[in-house]
Amino acid sequence: MRRGAESGTPSGAMSDALKPLIEGLREAATLNSVLFALEWDEQTQMPPGGAEHRANQKALLARLTHEKATAPALGEALARAEAAVTGFAPDADDAVIVRQARRAYDRAVKLPGSLVEETARVTAHAHHAWVDARKHADAARFAPWLARVIDLCQQKARCLGAEGQSAYDTLVDEYEPGATTAELNEVFGTLKAPLVALVAKVGASGRAPRRDLMTRAFAVEVQERVGRIAAEKLGYDFARGRLDVSVHPFSITLGPGDSRITTRYHANRFGDSFFGVLHETGHALYEQGLLPEHFGTGLGEAASLGLHESQSRLWENLVGRSRPFWAHFWPIVRDAFGATLADVREEEFLFAANDIRPSPIRVEADEVTYNLHILLRFEIEQALISGDLKPHDVDAAWNDKLRALLGITPRDAAEGCLQDVHWSGASFGYFPTYTLGNLYGAQLFEAARRDLGDGLDVDFARGDFSALRGWLRKHVHAHGQRYLAKDLVTRVSGKPFSADAFLRHVNSKAETWFGV
Amino acid sequence: MRRGAESGTPSGAMSDALKPLIEGLREAATLNSVLFALEWDEQTQMPPGGAEHRANQKALLARLTHEKATAPALGEALARAEAAVTGFAPDADDAVIVRQARRAYDRAVKLPGSLVEETARVTAHAHHAWVDARKHADAARFAPWLARVIDLCQQKARCLGAEGQSAYDTLVDEYEPGATTAELNEVFGTLKAPLVALVAKVGASGRAPRRDLMTRAFAVEVQERVGRIAAEKLGYDFARGRLDVSVHPFSITLGPGDSRITTRYHANRFGDSFFGVLHETGHALYEQGLLPEHFGTGLGEAASLGLHESQSRLWENLVGRSRPFWAHFWPIVRDAFGATLADVREEEFLFAANDIRPSPIRVEADEVTYNLHILLRFEIEQALISGDLKPHDVDAAWNDKLRALLGITPRDAAEGCLQDVHWSGASFGYFPTYTLGNLYGAQLFEAARRDLGDGLDVDFARGDFSALRGWLRKHVHAHGQRYLAKDLVTRVSGKPFSADAFLRHVNSKAETWFGV
Repeated sequence: MRRGAESGTPSGAMSDALKPLIEGLREAATLNSVLFALEWDEQTQMPPGGAEHRANQKALLARLTHEKATAPALGEALARAEAAVTGFAPDADDAVIVRQARRAYDRAVKLPGSLVEETARVTAHAHHAWVDARKHADAARFAPWLARVIDLCQQKARCLGAEGQSAYDTLVDEYEPGATTAELNEVFGTLKAPLVALVAKVGASGRAPRRDLMTRAFAVEVQERVGRIAAEKLGYDFARGRLDVSVHPFSITLGPGDSRITTRYHANRFGDSFFGVLHETGHALYEQGLLPEHFGTGLGEAASLGLHESQSRLWENLVGRSRPFWAHFWPIVRDAFGATLADVREEEFLFAANDIRPSPIRVEADEVTYNLHILLRFEIEQALISGDLKPHDVDAAWNDKLRALLGITPRDAAEGCLQDVHWSGASFGYFPTYTLGNLYGAQLFEAARRDLGDGLDVDFARGDFSALRGWLRKHVHAHGQRYLAKDLVTRVSGKPFSADAFLRHVNSKAETWFGV
Repeated sequence: MRRGAESGTPSGAMSDALKPLIEGLREAATLNSVLFALEWDEQTQMPPGGAEHRANQKALLARLTHEKATAPALGEALARAEAAVTGFAPDADDAVIVRQARRAYDRAVKLPGSLVEETARVTAHAHHAWVDARKHADAARFAPWLARVIDLCQQKARCLGAEGQSAYDTLVDEYEPGATTAELNEVFGTLKAPLVALVAKVGASGRAPRRDLMTRAFAVEVQERVGRIAAEKLGYDFARGRLDVSVHPFSITLGPGDSRITTRYHANRFGDSFFGVLHETGHALYEQGLLPEHFGTGLGEAASLGLHESQSRLWENLVGRSRPFWAHFWPIVRDAFGATLADVREEEFLFAANDIRPSPIRVEADEVTYNLHILLRFEIEQALISGDLKPHDVDAAWNDKLRALLGITPRDAAEGCLQDVHWSGASFGYFPTYTLGNLYGAQLFEAARRDLGDGLDVDFARGDFSALRGWLRKHVHAHGQRYLAKDLVTRVSGKPFSADAFLRHVNSKAETWFGV
């Protein structure tokens, strides 16, 4: 992690010329981290009576954080730091810190407080409208709110966008810095036809796993115990985190040394909690792999949502649904649940965990069809932001696309265009990062296999994941925002970023289990 | 709660003339409440890895809160508000808000940030030194730190003290506004000889409860269940709070609608957790009884530590160790623990819960001897702050006083002068509020009995505590800081504040159980 020195730039300069900048960044980040502490508490612990005051606490902290992040003194420290790093290699520590500080500062300054407040207000109402519309499976109820949210997103894009940048490009860039609609359309375009064809072939194969295996009586306390064992074996450090229950699973960092995860348990669904814990563990391993000494700067923060998702997907799917992984975990899981799985063979369980089958709900979709759910949203989002699609036409467009991609029709709007919370929260441009995560993850995993050799499977079968974790820490986590996500993937794998590795993975999986 | 109107002052004026003041107070209080959220998390949830960053978060928030609390704009709003309430009755809403705002503002402004930071730094070290000294039962190791802490307390007293006010008076006033050393010495003086005599008589009575009853095998999950039942029956609202485990039990308010309590469980000590929960519930009922609409102002905050402690002691001791209380709870507790208490009669259990017996540790002391532990500390604190006693002579002074008051000698300094955390945290002047709590509680409970009549015991025996809770809410909780604690007690009881009610209570208890 002495990239500055490796690149021949004077990394020792950092402590002096950048000190005021780093102090300012760290203070803003520390204040912001308090918001995460309040958020975790709200989602996992807070009694209902605390809700109103909690909203006041969060609004005040958000305002104070914004004040810190846009302080003129910080802007001056930033300008002086920029002068100090002139001529530095772009991947030198100091250059990264300054570049990412500039990005954050400009975005904070460009976004008017009034728009931020208006968005907070409208999305709070839009969320309730969405809950109500979903409950009644009535897309028309949500359409007017969707229109207001889109208008706010367009305003935001006008504030933040560079000359000639499309609104959707600007929105995507917030979650996936450097990504453009054109590039996403290109790489997603190479994915679409092969996946649609693959799903059709699997459907026509006549093979299917025993689908009852995952919906038996799985005692919740055993699910929890098994989940903890898995998280710990993957390398999640419980001395720097904890596992709790929440309505929607998430991972969150309250500060260096404190990255927590959550899951939820259903007494008759083991896969939800188990693969959910693997998923959140993947996110948390990224956070635990960031270097604490860089807290508050771009060197200490994740590169993008897509790269974050690559870590969760890699551990959940590429590791967690693999044969070597279950060579170790099958006896643990089978024995832990006693009679529940006594009649099941490892092979049957593994097939069930690798099922491929069209279904209407994104969060319940398998590793393959999941991406078609994302492509659908990506296309609709672009059309909504450009104005080509009107909010009240989303329901029909959704159903048409779902039929085309997966050959199924949602029972109603609740199972269709109202299933996700994202749009009510103004998170346009977020969805594509999920599929980017699958693609990054597959390409990184191939590179890790290349570097670490076949011993990796033997390690997994022994329950030892340290080599892969160490590799990811070194090549991905420890870099923070040194590189754009796709550049990091290209650099580490030695190949341009593409959907190839992911397609190889799902084709191989389909061949193994469905003989196609 | 329309005191302004009752007193003939224009309470409607509040909303306008005081609005800027109240907004400023509320903002500072909201920020401060975030510190309590972080503190609760730290004591009950935080993984060890989060400690370092948590300290940074708290230091930053403390600084920002101090900035808000001393903002010149707040001072100006306060001055304008003072002009607006001229001539108001002192117990009118507006007058209370302004008076308490002035007190808080002046204290915050008078205390230099450098002294606050120095105190935070020294007490952090002193805490470690105390832990180490206690571990080695070596008072001399802690003496130099005690000297430094005392010096800081003396400095603080010089900053905050009024003309001619003694240093210890100033320190006490922080925890118990309006209390003076002279008054405390007077009321505690009326307590000392009677309690010493009572303890001697009880010791000579030849009677004692079965002392094994409280140290049997009490399953922790049953202790927790029974504790929750008790808290709920006393009226603790779990929709506006929660019960967790921590090393040191406490109650804490994260904001209106969110007052949490904690306890700790030992598998062979039921009384610790059960009476501990009653105690913390008493604190939390006070917090839940404050009016949320007054959050941030003196009308929405507890009057003093002594009055707070009166609420915890009242529920723990005066209610929770009474015969009517156990008429309801004995069957619940006995049945919950199955075989553990099967051979025990209600009368035996009740006697054990009302034992009186000298012991060296304050937090394990009974309701009577507890106050002698406090008198000892009160005398030593005064001598330390005035300089009459040197830190390295505390150990000997402690042991002499303990022999005189309780007739026992600590095994070592860990069981003697090093047992409490308070001095390492610079909390001089805090101890007397514990005994004030016992005295206030007894006087208030007598007044409640007078107002509510004998039906109260019948209610308790039915598990109905609503009449007492409602009485306390109306006469104590809802007033916030409208009156000084002792004035409120005098007003509500119709008698000058004294130790009489408490002495009546413990004499009656000694007569009942020990025949003396």
